[in-house]
Amino acid sequence: MMVKSLKFVLLKSLPLIFFVITGLNFNVLCAQETKEDNTATWIWYPGDYEIWLSNKMQVRRTEREAVFPPLWRYYSPFPLVTFQTEVNIPEKDEINIYSEGLFQLLVDGVQIHGQPKTITIEPGKHKISFKVYNQEFLPAIYIDGTYVNSDETWMVTNEDKLWIDEEGNAQQSGTPWMPVGSWKFHSPDDRPSEFQLETEPWAAKSTEPVGSGELVDFGKETFGYIRVHGLKGEGQLSLFYGESREEALDSARSETLDYIEFEGSQPSTYTHDESKAYRYVQVQADPTLKYDSISMLYEYLPLDYRGEFKSSDKLLNEIWDVSAYTMHLTSREFFIDGIKRDRWIWSGDAHQSYMMNYYLFFDEASVERTLLALRGKEPVTAHINTIMDYSLYWFVGIYDYYLYTGDTDFIETFYPRMKSLMEFVLGRRNEAGFLEPLEGDWVFIDWADGLPKTGEVSFEQMLLARSLEAMAVSAEIADETEDQQTYEALAEEMQDKLFDVFWDEQDQVMLHQRVDGEMQDMVTRYANMFGIFFNYFNEEQKQSVKENVLLNDDVLQITTPYMRFYELEALCAMGEQEYVLDEIRDYWGGMLELGATSFWEKYDPSDEGVEHLSMYGRPYGKSLCHAWGASPIYLFGRYYLGVQPTAPGYSEYEIRPNLGGLKWIEGKVPTPHGEIKVYANQKEIRVTGVKGEGKLIFKSKSKPRGSAAIKSLGENEYEMNIDPGLEYKISYRAI
Amino acid sequence: MMVKSLKFVLLKSLPLIFFVITGLNFNVLCAQETKEDNTATWIWYPGDYEIWLSNKMQVRRTEREAVFPPLWRYYSPFPLVTFQTEVNIPEKDEINIYSEGLFQLLVDGVQIHGQPKTITIEPGKHKISFKVYNQEFLPAIYIDGTYVNSDETWMVTNEDKLWIDEEGNAQQSGTPWMPVGSWKFHSPDDRPSEFQLETEPWAAKSTEPVGSGELVDFGKETFGYIRVHGLKGEGQLSLFYGESREEALDSARSETLDYIEFEGSQPSTYTHDESKAYRYVQVQADPTLKYDSISMLYEYLPLDYRGEFKSSDKLLNEIWDVSAYTMHLTSREFFIDGIKRDRWIWSGDAHQSYMMNYYLFFDEASVERTLLALRGKEPVTAHINTIMDYSLYWFVGIYDYYLYTGDTDFIETFYPRMKSLMEFVLGRRNEAGFLEPLEGDWVFIDWADGLPKTGEVSFEQMLLARSLEAMAVSAEIADETEDQQTYEALAEEMQDKLFDVFWDEQDQVMLHQRVDGEMQDMVTRYANMFGIFFNYFNEEQKQSVKENVLLNDDVLQITTPYMRFYELEALCAMGEQEYVLDEIRDYWGGMLELGATSFWEKYDPSDEGVEHLSMYGRPYGKSLCHAWGASPIYLFGRYYLGVQPTAPGYSEYEIRPNLGGLKWIEGKVPTPHGEIKVYANQKEIRVTGVKGEGKLIFKSKSKPRGSAAIKSLGENEYEMNIDPGLEYKISYRAI
Repeated sequence: MMVKSLKFVLLKSLPLIFFVITGLNFNVLCAQETKEDNTATWIWYPGDYEIWLSNKMQVRRTEREAVFPPLWRYYSPFPLVTFQTEVNIPEKDEINIYSEGLFQLLVDGVQIHGQPKTITIEPGKHKISFKVYNQEFLPAIYIDGTYVNSDETWMVTNEDKLWIDEEGNAQQSGTPWMPVGSWKFHSPDDRPSEFQLETEPWAAKSTEPVGSGELVDFGKETFGYIRVHGLKGEGQLSLFYGESREEALDSARSETLDYIEFEGSQPSTYTHDESKAYRYVQVQADPTLKYDSISMLYEYLPLDYRGEFKSSDKLLNEIWDVSAYTMHLTSREFFIDGIKRDRWIWSGDAHQSYMMNYYLFFDEASVERTLLALRGKEPVTAHINTIMDYSLYWFVGIYDYYLYTGDTDFIETFYPRMKSLMEFVLGRRNEAGFLEPLEGDWVFIDWADGLPKTGEVSFEQMLLARSLEAMAVSAEIADETEDQQTYEALAEEMQDKLFDVFWDEQDQVMLHQRVDGEMQDMVTRYANMFGIFFNYFNEEQKQSVKENVLLNDDVLQITTPYMRFYELEALCAMGEQEYVLDEIRDYWGGMLELGATSFWEKYDPSDEGVEHLSMYGRPYGKSLCHAWGASPIYLFGRYYLGVQPTAPGYSEYEIRPNLGGLKWIEGKVPTPHGEIKVYANQKEIRVTGVKGEGKLIFKSKSKPRGSAAIKSLGENEYEMNIDPGLEYKISYRAI
Repeated sequence: MMVKSLKFVLLKSLPLIFFVITGLNFNVLCAQETKEDNTATWIWYPGDYEIWLSNKMQVRRTEREAVFPPLWRYYSPFPLVTFQTEVNIPEKDEINIYSEGLFQLLVDGVQIHGQPKTITIEPGKHKISFKVYNQEFLPAIYIDGTYVNSDETWMVTNEDKLWIDEEGNAQQSGTPWMPVGSWKFHSPDDRPSEFQLETEPWAAKSTEPVGSGELVDFGKETFGYIRVHGLKGEGQLSLFYGESREEALDSARSETLDYIEFEGSQPSTYTHDESKAYRYVQVQADPTLKYDSISMLYEYLPLDYRGEFKSSDKLLNEIWDVSAYTMHLTSREFFIDGIKRDRWIWSGDAHQSYMMNYYLFFDEASVERTLLALRGKEPVTAHINTIMDYSLYWFVGIYDYYLYTGDTDFIETFYPRMKSLMEFVLGRRNEAGFLEPLEGDWVFIDWADGLPKTGEVSFEQMLLARSLEAMAVSAEIADETEDQQTYEALAEEMQDKLFDVFWDEQDQVMLHQRVDGEMQDMVTRYANMFGIFFNYFNEEQKQSVKENVLLNDDVLQITTPYMRFYELEALCAMGEQEYVLDEIRDYWGGMLELGATSFWEKYDPSDEGVEHLSMYGRPYGKSLCHAWGASPIYLFGRYYLGVQPTAPGYSEYEIRPNLGGLKWIEGKVPTPHGEIKVYANQKEIRVTGVKGEGKLIFKSKSKPRGSAAIKSLGENEYEMNIDPGLEYKISYRAI
């Protein structure tokens, strides 16, 4: 059985490029077009900056001044790489050379002596290559001329294999050239190694005395650097951070703190050099140390809030706002899980951030950076984050990335890393062809008491099936036809086996687990809800799963916003928007009622008081600003505004507004080509399309009228084509 | 056909250690013995220091102020590793903590807050682990207590996979623990990242004016930092280095130079911060810059000259001395090829350095460092140095390392890297099972005009056969029985095929090459000489090869000391010591006659004048101090003093003195257990043995008399057992 959830249409039609590199006349793979309007940018080996930056970022997690680095392996940038371009310039070009690292420069195969800061390139065709060494950071260059500029057309390799024979003739073959990586460092002084997020000053909202010190409240969850004003004298300043008031007041057990020693020579305005997550800070100073006041520098990644959502329900609007803020706080150098803890990049968490991002910022670069940081390099020796499901979410993330952005370059460049990770995954199947944890494999699924994770878990196999689909699509993009066929066959086989083994024909639900060949009589929500929105179930199966699992209170309940994301998505996909709104009001509204200013790692309505703050056996162990808490952003955009791409990069898309019982909803959904606008109330729908073939699909009790042709689909359903840039109005009667 | 050249006896009998690591009570693989006399040392992930240091060293090659990094890939240290030990201490231990990098400290699974400089460990059993992050250099620690000390018993991993579940319980499995690496950094201040070779001041031998500057002659080839005394004023100082007078005087074309700018505030004695290779330096200063004199700091690795050789021939003695000096100059952080150029680590060159080292310094650490730097890490994407034969020499080097040192720890630790390299090599065989260059493979063999290197070259297959033997022996050491059987079978198969395809039954020689299935009618020396000392030929074959190839002037001549090494070794192995001495006098004596103070990369007696200095199309391209020029050290020790191990680590050894026509020879050969002393003249042999089962084997016209029992082996050959530490005298009559 093979239900293909989506037919991808390949947007690109790349010519096959053949090349032979031999002798001094080696050819660069992509010749740079001659153009005068080039703007230079810092370039590096693709993926290496992300590895370097994520290594640096993730080790910034601290617990009471102890660093707390990740438990998985760190990769490294290549310390020695060669950048190369081919140019054809109409006149002399004086180029400026900026480098992070020592370099060797060859022009037309001839070594230029010294470490020049500028060099003149004569008119005509030239091959220019820089071999750059930097073991401390990563090799990067910025080349700035009128015609010759470092940009995304350059190629790079980590082993040039260019050698000189006895006679002085250069030989080269087998060099693995790659397109360079870059981000947003467009000036020579804007060095990648010195990257910092943006900051802006925030004042405290209120303060109150605590002993001889004070408790500073910034009014809501934030992240950044504490500032001390009017600082005089010497001695120790103690900062006890708290996402909650309780945590900041509990000096002995707060998760994060800083003890800062001053010797008297500090400036009167002092900014601490480590950023933390908090709403409250308890400040205690030695009697010999005086200060006037405390503020902070809020640290953030600049991102446009392109997605919007408003409705007739103020609570939901607040939930969307707090979700967006939670999402922004956790969208940093990379999409991280929580800003107090772990400050790490987790693939399962990140997958949800990708989905929310498509409905809020639509920042492709953040998705790419995060995918690259997670994937690391070769060799693959463990699952991503050591978690089986997290390797698989990585592939699902690629699948969605292509669907939402339509970008093929990224997939082409990194296809070899996709393949080697998939080879690792496939190499860990058992004799039955299923993934079953081996030594060192952590099966996570969710935080839930009594959730069995051993043996063959259906949920993992379902993720593998979708991962194989992602590989098939990616292989096609990378022109790896043989791989494509292999992965398509494997994907089909995996789906068939999934149903053969785990589908309970009697109860019409997906069972949870098989251990040592014996099916376990247990149903959980996980595979059942994914089967719905992966479109692996037929309509009949979906209905059964909805009734027998999703809406069945006897099935193990979900208590994390993490799996709530998928649970509510599945219900929305089944048209239960109204029910889901109630759930959102209860669950996210419940956190707001408890004073949340960002959404949490876990929320159990049955907890009381400080129980809400504890996790992992620690009184303040729980993260109160966790990316996976922000899922309403995704749900509102995808299932209420109802916008989704149906072909890569929104080349085709659907708008299926759903009021879910609300009086009105209104908002924007970002796409690669601008924002799709949607307004709906009981009687009117207004949409504005973007580039691509849009379709508005809606139900109406009465025959709708609109500013363009409306087609009836039967059963009160209607469809209207949406052309780019135009606003459409429809009069209808909501069901 | 399988002629096993040497039967290795495994020295070790390690108990198999089984362990289960799970929960907080994870066990460390090797429990550290409680001992009070522990001395601490800096420890790191094994092999990582060598990678870091070799990256740094090899990029120090410059050509006229341009850096010239290697053409092959650089690997990186792991930026995040966890060190761990288990202790059982009788009383409180206050330990000092020194770290290169931020660390997280766990004692018995509990995180210790902060970055403590000291910590007290209570009496009893404890597990102590440090997770250290250092992306700029490499993570290293030095732990110094009375009982707890960082030493070679600690284990380390690059992925600890220790995670905390929802309840705060630690879980761990699948962690790949390794024994730590260390070298000679035994004090806290002696930080691995600050490693420098030793230096000592050398005065100039003479000076002469050159224009307004001068030419400084240090009397012989040297390496180090130029010093300027009595420096005053400001301006530029230009240094043109020369291994030859011609080079130093040729400002426009000397291979290395330095332009140093002074602003007037420099100290009066200035030491330059880059070291170079030279005998001569031309110094030119701006008129505004004055100085009194030039000297240098000679930079070297401190090594004991444990091997010695003297004979009745002064020329040979000088050749040995200059060889030893050449060898010392090229034995630095690693065994490099040449000190002017390339200053890189080449596996083929290094293999000869290993062999010479066993007869001069017997410095195991230098061999290990070099093997590790060459091998790098995972994944293997190209041959070592991109050269097919150089991957294979690496295995041969391991084979010899075990034979000479008997060390199994190194092989056990790095067996996985041996295996992955061999898998890469085997993966590049053609359909016939032979190595034939694929895209990116450089077949080097030797610098020789008209030497064909395409298709299936017999020489490469022979190196592969020996490499497979090395793998079989190493697999046995690593307790990988299945691998051992596989590699033994492959080695046998490869030897059989080698003879089936390349052995010319009619002429009784090894042919050079098969191209596209067609045997080429060409004989070269390479496979033929290796077949002799690899013991792959039987006696009859050896004689035929000697007559028809080695002593046949029509076969392509060898012009590099590199292959002269093996050619002369083959002749020595065939008893041609007297002939070889003449060759040595001619060839190495020829260089001395031209004024060599160290031996060269290439020497062609037919060259004239400055032709001797040129190579690679550059007038001073040739290296005049090249490790492979020093082979007489090996030949004299192995084939004249006649000492060689016949079982790993000299547990058994032979002494077969051979005068080669000289009146007398005398010397020492280092072993792991001290030096074997040998003296021989026409009438007397004196030897002193070391630990191990020694055998003196010699020929005598008359019945010899000695201080111990002498056994006749027939055909005028005799044998005497040599016990450790005793001196033996034999009266005989040399043949």
